Amino acid sequence: MNWKAVAKILGKILIAEAVMLLLPLVVAAYYGEHTYSSFLIPFFALLALGVPTLFIKAEGEDKKIYAKEGFAIVAFAWLALAAIGAIPFVLSKAIPNYASALFETISGFTTTGASVLSDVESLPKSILFWRSFTNWIGGMGVLVFVLAILPKENSGIIHAFRAEATGPNVGKLTSKMGRTARILYAIYIFFTLLEMLFLLCGNMPIFDAVTTSLANAGTGGFSVKNASIASYNSLYIEMVVTVFMFIFSVNFNLYFLILTGHAAKALKSEEALAFTAMVIISILAVAANIYYSVDSIRNFGSAMRYSSFQVLSLSSTTGFSSIDYNSWPTFSKGIFLFLMMTGGMAGSTAGGIKMSRLMILGKSTHADLKKMVHPRQIITVKMEGETVQQNTIDNVRVFFVIWVAILISCTLLISIEKTGDFFTNFSASLSCVSNIGPGFDGVGPAANFNAYTSFSKCVLSLEMLFGRLEIFPLILLFSPSTYRK
Amino acid sequence: MNWKAVAKILGKILIAEAVMLLLPLVVAAYYGEHTYSSFLIPFFALLALGVPTLFIKAEGEDKKIYAKEGFAIVAFAWLALAAIGAIPFVLSKAIPNYASALFETISGFTTTGASVLSDVESLPKSILFWRSFTNWIGGMGVLVFVLAILPKENSGIIHAFRAEATGPNVGKLTSKMGRTARILYAIYIFFTLLEMLFLLCGNMPIFDAVTTSLANAGTGGFSVKNASIASYNSLYIEMVVTVFMFIFSVNFNLYFLILTGHAAKALKSEEALAFTAMVIISILAVAANIYYSVDSIRNFGSAMRYSSFQVLSLSSTTGFSSIDYNSWPTFSKGIFLFLMMTGGMAGSTAGGIKMSRLMILGKSTHADLKKMVHPRQIITVKMEGETVQQNTIDNVRVFFVIWVAILISCTLLISIEKTGDFFTNFSASLSCVSNIGPGFDGVGPAANFNAYTSFSKCVLSLEMLFGRLEIFPLILLFSPSTYRK
Repeated sequence: MNWKAVAKILGKILIAEAVMLLLPLVVAAYYGEHTYSSFLIPFFALLALGVPTLFIKAEGEDKKIYAKEGFAIVAFAWLALAAIGAIPFVLSKAIPNYASALFETISGFTTTGASVLSDVESLPKSILFWRSFTNWIGGMGVLVFVLAILPKENSGIIHAFRAEATGPNVGKLTSKMGRTARILYAIYIFFTLLEMLFLLCGNMPIFDAVTTSLANAGTGGFSVKNASIASYNSLYIEMVVTVFMFIFSVNFNLYFLILTGHAAKALKSEEALAFTAMVIISILAVAANIYYSVDSIRNFGSAMRYSSFQVLSLSSTTGFSSIDYNSWPTFSKGIFLFLMMTGGMAGSTAGGIKMSRLMILGKSTHADLKKMVHPRQIITVKMEGETVQQNTIDNVRVFFVIWVAILISCTLLISIEKTGDFFTNFSASLSCVSNIGPGFDGVGPAANFNAYTSFSKCVLSLEMLFGRLEIFPLILLFSPSTYRK
Repeated sequence: MNWKAVAKILGKILIAEAVMLLLPLVVAAYYGEHTYSSFLIPFFALLALGVPTLFIKAEGEDKKIYAKEGFAIVAFAWLALAAIGAIPFVLSKAIPNYASALFETISGFTTTGASVLSDVESLPKSILFWRSFTNWIGGMGVLVFVLAILPKENSGIIHAFRAEATGPNVGKLTSKMGRTARILYAIYIFFTLLEMLFLLCGNMPIFDAVTTSLANAGTGGFSVKNASIASYNSLYIEMVVTVFMFIFSVNFNLYFLILTGHAAKALKSEEALAFTAMVIISILAVAANIYYSVDSIRNFGSAMRYSSFQVLSLSSTTGFSSIDYNSWPTFSKGIFLFLMMTGGMAGSTAGGIKMSRLMILGKSTHADLKKMVHPRQIITVKMEGETVQQNTIDNVRVFFVIWVAILISCTLLISIEKTGDFFTNFSASLSCVSNIGPGFDGVGPAANFNAYTSFSKCVLSLEMLFGRLEIFPLILLFSPSTYRK
């Protein structure tokens, strides 16, 4: 491992987080809240850790970054960001227990949105802003951010980020070059601002509009209201949020293609078609199911309203809620659980297994079945018009196996304590590994994760990180070969 | 597809089933029950279908059997066996509804043991015998039976059965030659008789000892008592059944090795060690969990008694119960669900994914992770001392992906109706695909599957067949290329 190069980049990431902590400070000043020290202490801590790395001398071989270093940077960066990002919650006494604060922060950065708080409305606005802002930062990724603002000296990082790519084809956009990173961040900011504007037009208070847009853009789903989006009781606001939940679960490369004049190619994306089809079918199935089974839903229109919001909230892995769907029939819950596994498209801010991974799983399975019956035939797997390499297929299959193993073993681990029944624990585990937020029953939309012990909170936090970083970087942290020369 | 060759072997399998129907006839005669016609009608139907195939002329190319024909024979044979094997239940009015009778029969042949009956004790003994006997027939497989009794003219079938092998290395023993088939059937009969003897020593009535041994040997788990093994309330009987549930989840090739003087090799089997370790750890974990959490269990001894029985009942996929474990804590239930997925060893009569498949999944995942960090290193996967071919790894991964897909989609399909909550439906689906029998809550050990509609019963029946035939043969049935020239 090339520790010098790793440290240099980690330092820059820490400084970037310090700069980000200045924003909630501005909020505190605007609303006259006495939460300055809650942000200033971690601010200086980050600078104290980050600035010295600027003076590390790294020349020639010391600057080289390969796959291993790329994985390590990602893993260490996210752990450090969360560990220090949790401090404002503790210092402001919003969440006095550090394990719980760490859970909330990891939940924020990983864009999960699972919360230990039962009454967010009583918290200082600056703390709520920081909470929603972690969703926004985590959505696009802080590494892309560093890449976007420090373009020149980072030819090495780019190479590493490309090796780091964990998606089936592209990673979470971190594999792109500095210029692309800036364009993608620009798209991200544009859509976030656009949503704010739409929400303001719906008479949402400005603070709510800003925080909701930040949480929505990262598909995180932290809300500043206890009842989430349901508290606004506005069809318009629900529609705006629904549309933007869709927008943020789309592969950002498609927007990039449209911007650069390749709209035709973007519209032919197999993944986008499959995702859209899945969303539409799910909306119709759930709407029909709740229209016939839930007494409080009187007409098909309101069935469609609640169904479309909830389907997009879960398939985009945002986790906002416009109604307590916990009492809905088993079939709807089953569809929700399926959507929670699938998640959004690769290259979006959404979590889950990702539609393109599932498509590669399905197509390669079909191809292998064909090979079984016709052993001499040569069968290739195609995706978006290109042949998928065997290497990619293996990668996707390994991802799927580990993903299922994590889901099952974390469900078991949090079941050691007596808090939840099996369905609660399974949905909590699934919600965390797919970075959604709420689950069912004991962790349903009307409940929160605070009942779990610190041990279970740590398990779920780790699970959220595994989900957001797409497994591989974190596994490297636990492998002894990482620390060998 | 070579239909002539397929028909010829199918015919022999139907005749074999006709012969098997004579056994419950003997039972009916012994107990003076008026159920003759319930067995004689399907007996003659089977002969009418089977005997004409003996006169089909097949020479040269017409006799050739390849992978495709092997798959087709397995799939059609099991469907035909179940379709006709259900008739005695309908004619005797034990289960008047054909869909329910088919469910019960498929559950029997696939060694699942899921039942639609709430009061088995009121049924004629000949019907109960047939019910338990289906478990025994299905355990070793009727194809192996045909192979064992008709050795000479079957060099073609053997070739097909080898191609049919669906396990990671060996199939469900069906890939072996005629002589091996006879030795394995001898081992099967020996252990079945041995269990009967032990049960008789525990003062179990002879009819109960015979049927319990048949159901245990096939790891099916149909019982002639409403409360299953719990109704005998005997530590001795529970211990005998526990030991034999272990015996029948072991790869029969290991017994074969011991018989042929290779005991040392058998004892070094990686799969056996892993399975035994999993069972022991599970027993201890569940025992500790229920000792501390379940009030009715007063000492560690009885915790171990109930834990070891239930762990082996589920990991061997038998599905007997000695207590209603549905009220046990979440952690124990979680372990049970994990064991229900795993199942026994390959080459045993147990269902589930199988320990060796999970080991290949784990080992190949580990190897691929290593390759990610050290791309130039050559890493091979070893199992039982031999290198696992990439082809086998792909096969196991494809199996796993389809297995998960079946589990999820069948859970969704049976959720369309309103019968069960999500946990009930999920455990029902898992119980069926792993050929276990009981699940939790609405399909727990004290309940049965009768509440489901005929549609859901068909879905679950298909799932049981997918589980027992290990997916691939049935998929071929649904593929259009099967029916093309």
